[in-house]
Amino acid sequence: MPTPKGHTTAIRASRVIGTNVYSTNGDKIGEIEDVMLNKLDTNIMFAVVGFGGFLGLGEKFHPIPWSSLDYEKDKGGYIVPFTEEQLKNAPAHSLEELTKDDGAAARDAAFDYYKVERYWVVGAE
Amino acid sequence: MPTPKGHTTAIRASRVIGTNVYSTNGDKIGEIEDVMLNKLDTNIMFAVVGFGGFLGLGEKFHPIPWSSLDYEKDKGGYIVPFTEEQLKNAPAHSLEELTKDDGAAARDAAFDYYKVERYWVVGAE
Repeated sequence: MPTPKGHTTAIRASRVIGTNVYSTNGDKIGEIEDVMLNKLDTNIMFAVVGFGGFLGLGEKFHPIPWSSLDYEKDKGGYIVPFTEEQLKNAPAHSLEELTKDDGAAARDAAFDYYKVERYWVVGAE
Repeated sequence: MPTPKGHTTAIRASRVIGTNVYSTNGDKIGEIEDVMLNKLDTNIMFAVVGFGGFLGLGEKFHPIPWSSLDYEKDKGGYIVPFTEEQLKNAPAHSLEELTKDDGAAARDAAFDYYKVERYWVVGAE
């Protein structure tokens, strides 16, 4: 969501975590498990959406670009502009894998898969 | 900490929250209460450091620039390049005040007070 530099709408990471995430057809696909931050600059690398699993086993995690999360008040959660099919076939990882290669591997794969513009490319605005 | 575009070192927001924060003389000043994120772009606006208070009352919160946090393994927490005196006199808020003006007020005041370069100014790198 391009915006003039300087505009802010603040949200606390602790509030983001645990929020429901819905696909384009309105079905719940999971919840925000965490938000991956970059220690080396001020960038949010991606949101981590947890889905699947049963009784605490087998849960997988999708990196989702932060800009893809659209808060929908009526649903009380984020809608992402992806179908369930897209999400089912999306890169998924264990929590440990998410920080492999300092997080770049998971982030790059997600941005490529969802065809979201890379925020970290110079002149990408 | 300027860095070539694209470099990453990922850390999960849930891991940042609760981490101890120390001043330059090594004394603990508080803990990371939360991390303030900008919904309109991919920027981390500031970290929220909680300090003071007693038995759950009177706790105040400092916005601290994300780039000022330096993780020190031996201490198991972040060192910020500020003295206790600086921190005592720093802008402090209640949690509600932190998101006033969409977080810009708290963020701007903190960056000015600590004299940290504004990450959101075009050409600031």
